[in-house]
Amino acid sequence: MTSRGGAMCIDLDNLPALSLGATVFAGGGGGDPRIGELMALKAIRELGPVEVKPLDAFDDDDLIMPCGMIGAPTVMVEKIPNGGEGRVIREAYERHFGRPVAAVMPFEMGGINGVLPVTWAAYAGLPLVDADFMGRAFPELQMLTPHLYGMAGSPSVITDERMQTVVFDTMDNIWLEKLVRNCVASLGGSACGGLYPMTAGAAQRPAIIGTLSRAVRMGEAIRRGGEDPIAAISEVAPVTRLGQGKVVDIERRTSGGFVRGSALIEGLGADKGRLFRLEFQNENLVVLEDGEALATVPDIITLLDTHTGHGLVTEGIRYGQRIEIVAFPAPEVWTSKEGLAAVGPRAFGYDFDFVSVVDRHA
Amino acid sequence: MTSRGGAMCIDLDNLPALSLGATVFAGGGGGDPRIGELMALKAIRELGPVEVKPLDAFDDDDLIMPCGMIGAPTVMVEKIPNGGEGRVIREAYERHFGRPVAAVMPFEMGGINGVLPVTWAAYAGLPLVDADFMGRAFPELQMLTPHLYGMAGSPSVITDERMQTVVFDTMDNIWLEKLVRNCVASLGGSACGGLYPMTAGAAQRPAIIGTLSRAVRMGEAIRRGGEDPIAAISEVAPVTRLGQGKVVDIERRTSGGFVRGSALIEGLGADKGRLFRLEFQNENLVVLEDGEALATVPDIITLLDTHTGHGLVTEGIRYGQRIEIVAFPAPEVWTSKEGLAAVGPRAFGYDFDFVSVVDRHA
Repeated sequence: MTSRGGAMCIDLDNLPALSLGATVFAGGGGGDPRIGELMALKAIRELGPVEVKPLDAFDDDDLIMPCGMIGAPTVMVEKIPNGGEGRVIREAYERHFGRPVAAVMPFEMGGINGVLPVTWAAYAGLPLVDADFMGRAFPELQMLTPHLYGMAGSPSVITDERMQTVVFDTMDNIWLEKLVRNCVASLGGSACGGLYPMTAGAAQRPAIIGTLSRAVRMGEAIRRGGEDPIAAISEVAPVTRLGQGKVVDIERRTSGGFVRGSALIEGLGADKGRLFRLEFQNENLVVLEDGEALATVPDIITLLDTHTGHGLVTEGIRYGQRIEIVAFPAPEVWTSKEGLAAVGPRAFGYDFDFVSVVDRHA
Repeated sequence: MTSRGGAMCIDLDNLPALSLGATVFAGGGGGDPRIGELMALKAIRELGPVEVKPLDAFDDDDLIMPCGMIGAPTVMVEKIPNGGEGRVIREAYERHFGRPVAAVMPFEMGGINGVLPVTWAAYAGLPLVDADFMGRAFPELQMLTPHLYGMAGSPSVITDERMQTVVFDTMDNIWLEKLVRNCVASLGGSACGGLYPMTAGAAQRPAIIGTLSRAVRMGEAIRRGGEDPIAAISEVAPVTRLGQGKVVDIERRTSGGFVRGSALIEGLGADKGRLFRLEFQNENLVVLEDGEALATVPDIITLLDTHTGHGLVTEGIRYGQRIEIVAFPAPEVWTSKEGLAAVGPRAFGYDFDFVSVVDRHA
């Protein structure tokens, strides 16, 4: 992070690092960050660096706006946001709550959703909070940490590139997921949104702290990494290597505001003869070998390009790619009983329990 | 209408007449009024008669709340509103506009939507406007008169029996129909809503005036009608008899927030040997004989019970019913070029033009 009058900032220098790091921590989801990075570059060029502040630098009463894109990442890369969505979401919240928004926060730290809030914060003249509500990316609206604490995702504001808005106030977060998901599907499969608006004081408990600055450090390590990107990555976060190989099959279905599918990866080098199966719903859910799980949600499963160390989003997986399959331990909150009920393998329909990648490959 | 301090009111005496009249003018749609009538009875018993005022009795700046149920009438009869929806819609509008709602108005004068606003007005302590935006019932949100004048249906507030709310602000009324319809489907196929909120001054142009009091007069005529209900009906509105017969087949499909289907009616009495085919989408769209249209939207096509003269809603059509098929001329606004583009037979996918039932059967 660079400094502006003592505060940390996202600027032209470290924005590409944020984009790289957010993709590694996305676990394959969050959407391709390239478009978001270009939009943020433009905004920073026009308006200057965006200040990043720790959550505890805000007053307890300050209103925080968690935001990002919602929907199928396969759609996001063709149905491009116009940059004004953050303003529309902010105006809807300010009308709803009758007071100003104090800061923008990525609701998930992953892919485009790590960088799009930078653009929105730049245009709004607001600081970014160095935190998020997932510590990675997840596909559904009840998969944010505040849900574990019984906090409401409502009111949620959805907007599209036509500047249409829909404001949801539901009885619980399951209904929110259902209604927002259907609306996003009606809007073409992806849209932008604000979720779980709350004060900085209320956000103290659910927020996963420091994820934005950690993504920047990860991106900077990868850029310095050179020949051995995994070694560079391991300097920033504990990483488990699951195997290396070549993508030999990839299958995707986009419907109902999600992309679901799987990839087959044939082992190469030390892993020659092995066959890995990756399954995803927006994000990577499990890596299987001979029907056994090598890693599962909520651990962060990421495909890295063997040569560059860059993370791959699920919609970017292509036949023939040489990749390294790695995993990072889940943010601790997700490995509690309540956390696993929300985002463990059984929450995605798998008939097995979570075993931490750290324990499994110790 | 009865009088309370000089003003017209809906009270325990004339509520059943409103219900009967609204069903005749519904053209088969608007939903079965029985539940709405029972709810309004309860509200009037608790809180007294509801005042009905002409639109021009309001100040030009007064905010009018057009409201009713939206969705498939087949669902409405089992998914019952709780009576508090009007309050929820009103609160959402008052928060949105930052000022109080002055009056409740049925957005369509038909079926349950003729009487449900009575309940909501009673609980809100607000008057009812003696007008609506259809002069009948229609199935879609761009089929309200303000749409013809380029006025916005947004913001629209949708709420369900769980008191959840969704507020839509779309770029046009076609998007509004698409997003609201999908949301209503997600909520189970029917919901309550406010549409085309506007000031009393703005409502002067699109409003179809006097439709609530006319429905009461129609209901009172039917109740007095005795042996010859059609004669009684013709005292209140010009009615064309298309045929009498027995329902010999009825087919319905409920999906996507609509009920679509058709009924076959075998002629009886003077019409013995004739076969009529009625087609509907929530509302009755056309009556065909030997492939020729006898009547089409936007004229109001209604099935009347031969013995009682009561109107039938499409979801109430049953095998064996003895019915009279009648039609009333459409409110004039719908027979303009713009009106027919919105609600003429071609708007519902038919390959023929509108011919007024008055001209056709002159």
